[in-house]
Amino acid sequence: MSALTTVTTEQPELINAIDTIWVAICAAIIFFMEGGFALLEAGFVRSKNAMSIIAKVIVDIIFGGIAFYIVGFGIAYGNSNGWFAFDIGITSDDLGLGLTVSNKLFWFIQLGFAIAAISIVSGAVAERMKIWSYAVYVFIFCAVMYPMVADWVWNPNGWLATRGFNDFAGSAAVHAMGGFSALAAAIVLGPRFGKYKENGQVNAIPGHNLPLAAVGAFILWFGWFAFNPGSTLGAVGNWELIGTVATNTFLASAAGGISTMFYTYFRYGQIDITMTINGVLAGLVAITAGCNVVDANAAIIIGLVAGVLVDVAVLYIDKLQIDDPVGAIAVHGVNGLFGALAVGLFATDGGLFYGGGAALLGTQALGVGVIAVFSFTLTFILMKIMQKTFGIRISKREESAGIDAVSFGVEAYSTFE
Amino acid sequence: MSALTTVTTEQPELINAIDTIWVAICAAIIFFMEGGFALLEAGFVRSKNAMSIIAKVIVDIIFGGIAFYIVGFGIAYGNSNGWFAFDIGITSDDLGLGLTVSNKLFWFIQLGFAIAAISIVSGAVAERMKIWSYAVYVFIFCAVMYPMVADWVWNPNGWLATRGFNDFAGSAAVHAMGGFSALAAAIVLGPRFGKYKENGQVNAIPGHNLPLAAVGAFILWFGWFAFNPGSTLGAVGNWELIGTVATNTFLASAAGGISTMFYTYFRYGQIDITMTINGVLAGLVAITAGCNVVDANAAIIIGLVAGVLVDVAVLYIDKLQIDDPVGAIAVHGVNGLFGALAVGLFATDGGLFYGGGAALLGTQALGVGVIAVFSFTLTFILMKIMQKTFGIRISKREESAGIDAVSFGVEAYSTFE
Amino acid sequence: MSALTTVTTEQPELINAIDTIWVAICAAIIFFMEGGFALLEAGFVRSKNAMSIIAKVIVDIIFGGIAFYIVGFGIAYGNSNGWFAFDIGITSDDLGLGLTVSNKLFWFIQLGFAIAAISIVSGAVAERMKIWSYAVYVFIFCAVMYPMVADWVWNPNGWLATRGFNDFAGSAAVHAMGGFSALAAAIVLGPRFGKYKENGQVNAIPGHNLPLAAVGAFILWFGWFAFNPGSTLGAVGNWELIGTVATNTFLASAAGGISTMFYTYFRYGQIDITMTINGVLAGLVAITAGCNVVDANAAIIIGLVAGVLVDVAVLYIDKLQIDDPVGAIAVHGVNGLFGALAVGLFATDGGLFYGGGAALLGTQALGVGVIAVFSFTLTFILMKIMQKTFGIRISKREESAGIDAVSFGVEAYSTFE
Repeated sequence: MSALTTVTTEQPELINAIDTIWVAICAAIIFFMEGGFALLEAGFVRSKNAMSIIAKVIVDIIFGGIAFYIVGFGIAYGNSNGWFAFDIGITSDDLGLGLTVSNKLFWFIQLGFAIAAISIVSGAVAERMKIWSYAVYVFIFCAVMYPMVADWVWNPNGWLATRGFNDFAGSAAVHAMGGFSALAAAIVLGPRFGKYKENGQVNAIPGHNLPLAAVGAFILWFGWFAFNPGSTLGAVGNWELIGTVATNTFLASAAGGISTMFYTYFRYGQIDITMTINGVLAGLVAITAGCNVVDANAAIIIGLVAGVLVDVAVLYIDKLQIDDPVGAIAVHGVNGLFGALAVGLFATDGGLFYGGGAALLGTQALGVGVIAVFSFTLTFILMKIMQKTFGIRISKREESAGIDAVSFGVEAYSTFE
Repeated sequence: MSALTTVTTEQPELINAIDTIWVAICAAIIFFMEGGFALLEAGFVRSKNAMSIIAKVIVDIIFGGIAFYIVGFGIAYGNSNGWFAFDIGITSDDLGLGLTVSNKLFWFIQLGFAIAAISIVSGAVAERMKIWSYAVYVFIFCAVMYPMVADWVWNPNGWLATRGFNDFAGSAAVHAMGGFSALAAAIVLGPRFGKYKENGQVNAIPGHNLPLAAVGAFILWFGWFAFNPGSTLGAVGNWELIGTVATNTFLASAAGGISTMFYTYFRYGQIDITMTINGVLAGLVAITAGCNVVDANAAIIIGLVAGVLVDVAVLYIDKLQIDDPVGAIAVHGVNGLFGALAVGLFATDGGLFYGGGAALLGTQALGVGVIAVFSFTLTFILMKIMQKTFGIRISKREESAGIDAVSFGVEAYSTFE
Repeated sequence: MSALTTVTTEQPELINAIDTIWVAICAAIIFFMEGGFALLEAGFVRSKNAMSIIAKVIVDIIFGGIAFYIVGFGIAYGNSNGWFAFDIGITSDDLGLGLTVSNKLFWFIQLGFAIAAISIVSGAVAERMKIWSYAVYVFIFCAVMYPMVADWVWNPNGWLATRGFNDFAGSAAVHAMGGFSALAAAIVLGPRFGKYKENGQVNAIPGHNLPLAAVGAFILWFGWFAFNPGSTLGAVGNWELIGTVATNTFLASAAGGISTMFYTYFRYGQIDITMTINGVLAGLVAITAGCNVVDANAAIIIGLVAGVLVDVAVLYIDKLQIDDPVGAIAVHGVNGLFGALAVGLFATDGGLFYGGGAALLGTQALGVGVIAVFSFTLTFILMKIMQKTFGIRISKREESAGIDAVSFGVEAYSTFE
């Protein structure tokens, strides 16, 4: 996020209008990324659970959105003690961010980040979590957990913000936060039946509709060009920055796709096209923190690393028998972590590789480390409490017959006639 | 729709540029909603008619668009006598709306509203209407019917506009108008064969590809964040309003989804995920009239009511043996009506519940009532005339074998190989 | 493309901000068109090659994008000798285009045009080209071939630019360029096995998932409202032009769809819905060159002609036994050519039909003729060289079993369970 830098005009009404257009349209496109999450995840699971995962993303939006309206926003952007604030609803107070858009519009764009974070979790719990338990988790996540992290990173009084932590559009606050929550949730839930054999062998469960997953991936890719540039929160004073952010975002995604293509080709003799999509997403996640402070060549390097990192991470997570049906932990958790660290390495001003010493890298490591531990721990505890009380895992019968049929009474695809 | 409120600058060229960006991009996104209608409807019908319904939405766009260019726009926004105007094509006259964008660009955004209205009808006539008869209807709808209603509501001389009827982005003018036309069309066409048994029992005909319908729903949801905020028709002077409209639009949609989830869960013991999508859309339809004049809490209440209303309406319409394959009447007709009335109840300035008395409510009821009766009656008459002359219903053979195969000689899905 | 025309202000910071918003959002939407290409093409091929064609479009983006970053952009927009320039990366020099956005943002929007051009080729080589050979071709195309053509047409020193060649958003530079490259590639590759019988009969190979193709078509249609209006490269001074361009773009697309519907209906007794989609796209391609200089009625005429032209061209190309699985040559090549010529016929200032004589028509014919010959020849030579060296065509076994299974080890659709 970026506050207004320089105002060279005396016409506030025009500045308000210009920045409002920018934020309103970016916010709408960021919102559309929820469709991307839903379809990507639906395509990557079995058809018997396709509608249930779409339902989970709808829950992300509708329960998460209301939670972020009632308390979440106030915790994140109210008058913070460094760790959290406590306001209800959307105040009309000056939030100290130098905003040139209304607080309501700021709420709407921040909503997109909150529900993106929780949508990462929906992928990792696919095909086996109870919908109402998930809804409870979503509410708490968007009411308290994500808002606290956003407070640290983006509230002007946040403890990480005041230390100079640079997480422009949220590699740490959104992606690592969602990814490490996803990791905890996947661990507590346990793997889908049949995913891991007794002898430790991994039983691949292929996605049922990869073109549908591709629809989702293209929507996400598109949306990232609002997610990152839109984090400027205004265009006046930021016209050069917006070009830099867009270019870096693209280059990292392309590099991520390329390195996954080569890596899987040389490692397995075949390009893994599903992983290539994840490689593109990994590049996007990794550049999200530093797209405002690295140069174009660094963006390419960050993407190249991310594209390999995601492949290695997917295998390693599978080896640990942590079942993540859509690769959410590897894409968002691991590369969110990497992206936050990459700022400390590649920032043209302060990055280790650019002669800036280790101070920024230390801050980045501290910040993303605390965020990862915090999200993992809270999710772990919450899931455990729900597990012991009203339960989180669907019945064996439901898992075998499919959540769609048993819980929702529908089939994603009716007999074609 | 909203005219320019305050201009605090003496640089008209900048204002033109700013407002042009806003309207041009919102218009493009609103246009994209046609893809949403097409895919939502295609997913909700049987595979044998999937391409035929997509063809109908393409007809909405291409025939409707040309009709709205040649005469429709002039009827709506020309020099009106209160009921209609009569100009041909897109004039360069001052339309009296205080526009800061070109008339051509204004035409393009208004086109999006016209073809949205007719696309509502395409859903209700799915799986049984002849394509050329439908094309004739589309032409008349977009040349005359919709433009008259738009004239009443949005032309500065329109008889409803001058009475203070508030229908910001068209709960009445677009959604009720389309929805009550859909009702008449569905009645005249009659139900699909096999939909209602002799004993009155309803035979559910499930949609063939619900993930495809979800693609459509996410496009519509996204598009609504241009449909409603874009109805400001300019950003200069409207920066606070745009934030309010976007936030209200979101909150109503979330509330609509939540109330449908709870309603169907407590009523049937299962969440109905298809209805939840309709609940979200119902919330969006219902907030469309009043998103500029209600507060955030009212938006939530409007959404909650809409989400239940749509469930009840779908059942009731089915009970009347009116076959509406995609629920267009319940979503757009019933909630368009409700949305227009809700302005009279919840408007912070003039709403009954906010101490404003019943005057506004009366105007809203009058307006939406006349629009509903007008659209229903004209469509009923038109469909009857077409029925008696060149016919509106496909042959039994076509209905049984599928419109795609018989009329278009294609299959949506070829044998997968 | 259009340079800034009139600046009536002394506040450059605001102009930068306004134009940056316009270009950044149009660029993002243009980028999204890649999803449109991928899904349209995937729907139009057999399911056994669906992921391989999506992989090809991803290669267009990631290899094409890096190539256009490293050398392509410099060749196109550097200090040109009229035929090409030679810079590396994205310079910060003044490009002589009167840009009000950063060079990086200009790069990002131009990237969208480059990868659109190459994505046209991906359709024509579908179901039979080796992925790595294709990646090499993509790299050369986006590093050298497309940039040279862009240099001629859009670099202020380009030999066509200085002659007054009008190709506003690239009927010639993008679509004819891609389409004639596609023609050469399809010829060298040869048809898919079984496409043409010994007796010359054409064996139709229907697309496996037409609703998926429709998703792609709607994304492309949407994207065109950024592709054409966004070619203004700024909104300040262009507010009327943007409205004109958007309206012309719509009207041509609608007319293209209508004329295809009537043509196929009267010719074959059935509306061809797949061709109707291509008719819409043909109208869009044909208006792309002249959307800034023709009036609304001319746009309709151009669309009507395009809609017939594409039908005739598809048949004729098939008669020549040139196998183009998605109709890319007819849509983009033939109508790109026509669109460039149509400027010479219909331009209100200089068009033959508007009393402007034949001079402009001559320039247009020369320009698009050279572009077509250039793209065809270079692609032909490149493909031949690759054919003789590392090969371009997949094995018979792969073609029979499907590229997805053999080369990528995946299936687009796993057994639904």
